[in-house]
Amino acid sequence: MKQKREITLAEIAATLGGELINGRGDILISNVSGLRDAKTGEISFLAHRRYLKDIDKTSASAVVIPKDMAFDRLPAIKVDNPYFAFSQLLHLFHDQPYSARGIDSNAFVGNNVELGEDISIYPYVYIGNNSIIGNNVTIYPFTFIGEDSIIGSNSVIYSNVTVREMCRIGSRVIIHCGAVIGSDGFGYVTHQGTHHKIPQVGGVVIEDDVEVGANTTIDRGTTGNTIIRKGTKIDNLIQVAHNVSIGEHCLFAAQSGIAGSSTTGNYVIMAGQSGVADHVNIGNNVIITGKSGATKDIKDGETVSGMPSMSHRKWLKSMAVFEDLPEMKKRIAELEKRLDEADKLFNNLKP
Amino acid sequence: MKQKREITLAEIAATLGGELINGRGDILISNVSGLRDAKTGEISFLAHRRYLKDIDKTSASAVVIPKDMAFDRLPAIKVDNPYFAFSQLLHLFHDQPYSARGIDSNAFVGNNVELGEDISIYPYVYIGNNSIIGNNVTIYPFTFIGEDSIIGSNSVIYSNVTVREMCRIGSRVIIHCGAVIGSDGFGYVTHQGTHHKIPQVGGVVIEDDVEVGANTTIDRGTTGNTIIRKGTKIDNLIQVAHNVSIGEHCLFAAQSGIAGSSTTGNYVIMAGQSGVADHVNIGNNVIITGKSGATKDIKDGETVSGMPSMSHRKWLKSMAVFEDLPEMKKRIAELEKRLDEADKLFNNLKP
Amino acid sequence: MKQKREITLAEIAATLGGELINGRGDILISNVSGLRDAKTGEISFLAHRRYLKDIDKTSASAVVIPKDMAFDRLPAIKVDNPYFAFSQLLHLFHDQPYSARGIDSNAFVGNNVELGEDISIYPYVYIGNNSIIGNNVTIYPFTFIGEDSIIGSNSVIYSNVTVREMCRIGSRVIIHCGAVIGSDGFGYVTHQGTHHKIPQVGGVVIEDDVEVGANTTIDRGTTGNTIIRKGTKIDNLIQVAHNVSIGEHCLFAAQSGIAGSSTTGNYVIMAGQSGVADHVNIGNNVIITGKSGATKDIKDGETVSGMPSMSHRKWLKSMAVFEDLPEMKKRIAELEKRLDEADKLFNNLKP
Repeated sequence: MKQKREITLAEIAATLGGELINGRGDILISNVSGLRDAKTGEISFLAHRRYLKDIDKTSASAVVIPKDMAFDRLPAIKVDNPYFAFSQLLHLFHDQPYSARGIDSNAFVGNNVELGEDISIYPYVYIGNNSIIGNNVTIYPFTFIGEDSIIGSNSVIYSNVTVREMCRIGSRVIIHCGAVIGSDGFGYVTHQGTHHKIPQVGGVVIEDDVEVGANTTIDRGTTGNTIIRKGTKIDNLIQVAHNVSIGEHCLFAAQSGIAGSSTTGNYVIMAGQSGVADHVNIGNNVIITGKSGATKDIKDGETVSGMPSMSHRKWLKSMAVFEDLPEMKKRIAELEKRLDEADKLFNNLKP
Repeated sequence: MKQKREITLAEIAATLGGELINGRGDILISNVSGLRDAKTGEISFLAHRRYLKDIDKTSASAVVIPKDMAFDRLPAIKVDNPYFAFSQLLHLFHDQPYSARGIDSNAFVGNNVELGEDISIYPYVYIGNNSIIGNNVTIYPFTFIGEDSIIGSNSVIYSNVTVREMCRIGSRVIIHCGAVIGSDGFGYVTHQGTHHKIPQVGGVVIEDDVEVGANTTIDRGTTGNTIIRKGTKIDNLIQVAHNVSIGEHCLFAAQSGIAGSSTTGNYVIMAGQSGVADHVNIGNNVIITGKSGATKDIKDGETVSGMPSMSHRKWLKSMAVFEDLPEMKKRIAELEKRLDEADKLFNNLKP
Repeated sequence: MKQKREITLAEIAATLGGELINGRGDILISNVSGLRDAKTGEISFLAHRRYLKDIDKTSASAVVIPKDMAFDRLPAIKVDNPYFAFSQLLHLFHDQPYSARGIDSNAFVGNNVELGEDISIYPYVYIGNNSIIGNNVTIYPFTFIGEDSIIGSNSVIYSNVTVREMCRIGSRVIIHCGAVIGSDGFGYVTHQGTHHKIPQVGGVVIEDDVEVGANTTIDRGTTGNTIIRKGTKIDNLIQVAHNVSIGEHCLFAAQSGIAGSSTTGNYVIMAGQSGVADHVNIGNNVIITGKSGATKDIKDGETVSGMPSMSHRKWLKSMAVFEDLPEMKKRIAELEKRLDEADKLFNNLKP
């Protein structure tokens, strides 16, 4: 069970690096909540101007607001980014101190495994031969770490995960339940009517500070590696195919997928259920909107939509007309009729 | 191995609450099958008028038919809903009596766990501290129940499932293999070029009589709960994001997804591979057809299609014209040419 | 750790059944790589003419080229299909000899299980009563085999897989991590406002040489079987619904899905994120392109695109016009205006 903490408003202001106004610094705060849900004793925050009406009704005992905002109803802390402050406050009230469980006697640890300090290996974990587990790593039950794989320090691997052989996971990586890292790429060569499996002998490299969602699958390279670069976050049920290279600080939403040998730059956003075809190169800062499919290379900074994807602006304009198609077809037919009649009249006029 | 049962036609009629015609109640029936597959000694059923031709050829020894239907070829049982009767007959012939296995010595049970009566805990199950397991619950191997979670009575949790900490699962819930309940929501705040994880400290509430498909993922709330209300059935490989609220008696087909903070009313149908964007409210009795994407609120009773979704009727009409687009473009060019020529002629006519 | 092998070029030529040119057969080769990555001591291959420029710069010590190609820069082996040769070379350099692990003492084996010879059952495997495990089968940790199921010889089942009761898996089948075979089909009958579960009492039959991707789900038949025929390869995160029948030698790419009772012929290709609606019959040699949705039967040999799917050629033509829709609408309005004006003028002309 989690322990509740109480923290003074002054301490909170110091943690957030913000300016305390309207208030006594000695008020005790026990949690952070949304403006509508917050109760007495809790602090809330204004993430966006559209919630301004909520801030006048909130029961919170204090609020975090943007630096430039005038406000006098409640004790408040002024910061640059109240939403970032919300995230900091969640850590403040909810983080539990890490205490290493050690290695459960019901875990299986292979030969020649290098185990870091202060690790937490739950029962029913399988760690293959020659693998390396960094310091402060937590591995939950029913998770399989294959031979010759590396898990960097401070990483957390939830239950029912598989990291197959020869994969390298960085530090501070979070892998959620049921994710599969290093499954075979989908590679066959069809010869005389039979699909022959191409052995998938490459690996997967996941850099530091990456997060991998539940039941997401990341295939190993055929030869060479599938790579996910530092700071990238990928959501649930995503497919990352063999030899894909994903840049730094990307965000991929649930059920998106990227096919074999495709690459992305940094800060790429793939929205839910979107896709990238194989051998496609996506630039930096590209946004692929929900359900869209990129079938060709996309330049830095573009936002694309549709299947096949096109400029988002063009797509919006065309979709705005899409509902008018039946009417447009009728109008064309009407024009043809009128013109036919005009022709007839005109021909009659001719001497 | 399952035991075969033999049941008299009279007993079957009584179970179904139907009227037996053309027949002797003492015929012994051993199974239920489709009209084409049924063999002598089996009973079949007419689910829809389009299968009428099959009923004249079936080898079944008896059939279940709608109340108002005339039929004399075989012993028959008349009921309101023959398809519902099919489901009842499958239960009748295939349900095995529940017998509790108890708790396997190879299961891990944490501290302060409350275990109900007559439970079946297979080997290699992990049950975290302070959790509550109701009466008659079955948990298959390699399933993880986190701390402070509750599994209601008569629920069945198949293998390789994760129910993370602080989740509440109702009674008579079925969770299929590989499903993940309570994974972290996909929440980050980007601050100075880095995506900072927003701690996901909420939970998941799954009410009574819900069914969750294989490898489906249901994220916990950021704060507050992700909720799936009673009687809702969700299929395989579905994403339910953080703080989503799904109404009662909904049906979500495979590979559909609903993004963060969206809500649905009751009796909503999401067809396969459909999606709902974040912060969208879907009314009661809405149908979202296959591969469609709802990006805006949808009113009660609407059926929508397309991406972005629109009225299904409008979408059908526009899609009917879609194939004609190249021809429509040609006809417009042709009209322009004719009008240009007419203008020329007309100008020549002018004095 | 894998052992490196060194093999002479002459031996390689013999293995591939190819003709060695420009070279001494005694050169020792230690690996196969792409033209760009290959180093001295490695062999590479020309999979497609578009890589011709790479073959002049490669550091490989030898290359595999098509039979009819002239080439004299390096020792080369001429074969019919260099890509197939690549696959053979990967086997040659990377396959490890199989050596049976036996049955780990931490595996659970039920009653009356028939175990083949030379099997490898890792720790934390669950094998249910009355199941049959063929010769040379490998089952990785956290995998569940249900009662009365059969795993054919030489099959490999990776970690965290579930094969539920009464499923039949053929020989040389590979099932990747997290896949679920035999989960309940999504079948309900709605009666008086409640969705009643239809018991799913059928099974799954997977024939020889099938490969099932990571976290893919294959539901059991309601009655009768869901069937995947020999040589078919299905990728990650795919949904195969109850009573589906998939033909031989099909290729389904990641995140595709096929709904209840649908069937496909042989050599069908479903590209990524594509779908087939329920009760649809797909012919032989059909290609369903990425993100497309087949809602009606499709004849042998067709390639279809779009949602709902249509002929790929028609779809390409219509999509080429899609971006012009706003302009087309304007041109129609312009034509109407011109015609209205012409009418006016014409009316004025009339006597």
